[in-house]
Amino acid sequence: MTAFDTLWASILDVGKHPTTGGYRRFAWSDADFTLREWFRGCAAERGMDVEEDRNGNLWAWWLPVGWEGDPTDAFVTGSHLDSVPDGGAFDGPLGVVSAFAAVDLVRERGIVPTVPIAITAFSDEEGARFGVACVGSQLTTGALAPQRALGLRDRDGITLAEAMTRAGRVPEHIGTDPTLVDRVGVYVELHVEQGRALDLVDAPVAVASSIWPHGRWQFTFTGEANHAGATRLVDRRDPMLAYASSVHSARSCAAAAGAVATFGKLEVLPNGANAIPSEIKAWLDARAADEETLTTLVAEIEAEARKHCLPDEIGLDVFAESITPIVEFPAGPRERLRRALSHLGDIPVLPTQAGHDAGILSEKVPTAMLFVRNPTGVSHSPHEFAEADDCNIGAQALADIMADWTTGS
Amino acid sequence: MTAFDTLWASILDVGKHPTTGGYRRFAWSDADFTLREWFRGCAAERGMDVEEDRNGNLWAWWLPVGWEGDPTDAFVTGSHLDSVPDGGAFDGPLGVVSAFAAVDLVRERGIVPTVPIAITAFSDEEGARFGVACVGSQLTTGALAPQRALGLRDRDGITLAEAMTRAGRVPEHIGTDPTLVDRVGVYVELHVEQGRALDLVDAPVAVASSIWPHGRWQFTFTGEANHAGATRLVDRRDPMLAYASSVHSARSCAAAAGAVATFGKLEVLPNGANAIPSEIKAWLDARAADEETLTTLVAEIEAEARKHCLPDEIGLDVFAESITPIVEFPAGPRERLRRALSHLGDIPVLPTQAGHDAGILSEKVPTAMLFVRNPTGVSHSPHEFAEADDCNIGAQALADIMADWTTGS
Repeated sequence: MTAFDTLWASILDVGKHPTTGGYRRFAWSDADFTLREWFRGCAAERGMDVEEDRNGNLWAWWLPVGWEGDPTDAFVTGSHLDSVPDGGAFDGPLGVVSAFAAVDLVRERGIVPTVPIAITAFSDEEGARFGVACVGSQLTTGALAPQRALGLRDRDGITLAEAMTRAGRVPEHIGTDPTLVDRVGVYVELHVEQGRALDLVDAPVAVASSIWPHGRWQFTFTGEANHAGATRLVDRRDPMLAYASSVHSARSCAAAAGAVATFGKLEVLPNGANAIPSEIKAWLDARAADEETLTTLVAEIEAEARKHCLPDEIGLDVFAESITPIVEFPAGPRERLRRALSHLGDIPVLPTQAGHDAGILSEKVPTAMLFVRNPTGVSHSPHEFAEADDCNIGAQALADIMADWTTGS
Repeated sequence: MTAFDTLWASILDVGKHPTTGGYRRFAWSDADFTLREWFRGCAAERGMDVEEDRNGNLWAWWLPVGWEGDPTDAFVTGSHLDSVPDGGAFDGPLGVVSAFAAVDLVRERGIVPTVPIAITAFSDEEGARFGVACVGSQLTTGALAPQRALGLRDRDGITLAEAMTRAGRVPEHIGTDPTLVDRVGVYVELHVEQGRALDLVDAPVAVASSIWPHGRWQFTFTGEANHAGATRLVDRRDPMLAYASSVHSARSCAAAAGAVATFGKLEVLPNGANAIPSEIKAWLDARAADEETLTTLVAEIEAEARKHCLPDEIGLDVFAESITPIVEFPAGPRERLRRALSHLGDIPVLPTQAGHDAGILSEKVPTAMLFVRNPTGVSHSPHEFAEADDCNIGAQALADIMADWTTGS
């Protein structure tokens, strides 16, 4: 067993659903608390001090011998520990586990860093509970207003403020933390690939070129609840039909634009088998290679949806819950990573369609991403997978990068 | 204020949602318990003994003076107190309130019945919590097997057996009760109309000719969960598209058959904004004027849904959760009701597309239904409505019928 393997095995049971086999590691839930304690334990075993920032993000520090004062120009690596509903084991935790394993490997090699190192676990990256992704990194970098974050509600009506209070945190303290951000020299996030590009070129790791611009839009279709048996078809204002047509519009518009668009989350009111729905709230996830394409795509889908609403006088409200601009990772850190990994060959450079904390941080600090091969491409699913050999190559590669960055030049 | 008005006002707050204005009176919930206590109070005020049968249905008895032994050949009237999610005030409670008001009116008129009278509130008519309608009347008449009923689960995974145990009931006791059913001479259910037929002919009340055959079918579309951003459109097995097409198939097949079909209830897994769904469970409610049309309609919708599943290799499982055959109410009781109400003119005779406990009981005993005008036709909605004047005419009509049946011939 390598250091990576041992660490990896230690959290495989946390938040795993017994029936689906998927993970339910939602922000500020019991599974999240268990993983936060695990993070603190891993840091303590390695003599790293843990700082929880005002937004719940965890930072474990390894300072050079004799370092005095606050860390500066640090090499920061990590990812997140939360999951989507019934997500896989890799999306997020692979980056945190690999970071601790990389520290072990660097130490085994007898390397003595001259630059501060931190391992991070950002809070609520998936946005599975409160609907907005990357809440922790967005708050710390100032991309998300504290008042908006605190008012976000989960499906039981609990606000983020209430969830943090129940967890013993002080919601009034959340917000941007420029001092902390200023300590970051570079942020490198290792992540399982969420597509099959590495499998197709038969390489275990890649570095990121960009993150597609993406966002989430709430489409609320409003009709009129009525009895499903006694209401004549001609008298109905059933929003399900306009919604159903919009599902197909989203697919065809996305296909035409070379983009992706998905309605994957729904809330139906009253959701009774013998009641015509009064309201359907549907979340559109849309992503494209550039911002203009994305904006045009969503406008087209909305226009089509409005057309589908006309015949039955269905109301439609469209609300942009979050929009993330394109992230182009800077060439400097990326090429330094590729040079540090040149013993693995010519490292592929790939765009990603998935959002990441690295994308949020890139607004403020130099960032780079390292992807580990996903042979099926499946992600956000219990079937998400990476080979143990590839994960170990990833941890070794992260150690190579850490050693290069914290001792070189 | 009439007796009806006072009774009606006394339950208007129970189970009413503060935001939607709809009622959430689910079986074995706090709102249900409150209404059961209200029923017992109304009966006690009138000197009527309440019997709860083994399936949770309430029976309040008014026996003729000097009656000895068990009641026989009783005039039974009532309805149910539970609601669909965000239902209206009238569907169910109008029949129970009118029954108590009718007892008051009969007594005010100095009428002395020579036949036993009972007022009933049947348990869980809507099936909103456990998915099967008319559970109480179906169990008592033997139409539903106790083992099937006890295993039904609500959306939190609580079985009917657990819900009954928490309510202090003994689930092992549920099942058919032929002795109790044998006591019923006739069952007359007063109900708010769930359509606009009475409004169109400008009459306050009608009697029922038949209940359309109807049923609920669970359609489970199975695809593959995956990342909504990183999965190429061509690699997806998203069940939302096949479901969306099936919504339109259901509508067009129903229109062609002169029937109704509705997908009004959905469960999406994992229901994450950035996850392609792995599974969509959708409930089809379908009804038609005769059984052959209904069977053909559902077979057509299923066949269309299977076609929609082919391109993306979506799995489809169709399960008939409940199927209720046509109910043709007997002419004898119906014509006796019309004669008893002849002072109101020529009482219209209407079919209904909605299921009722009267339909279940009609398998075992003579039954009839009385409808009260619904000027908008809206039902299963907070906007469900009947004029107070019409409700009072309904209660008076029920008193006329009660007097006629329990003192005449």
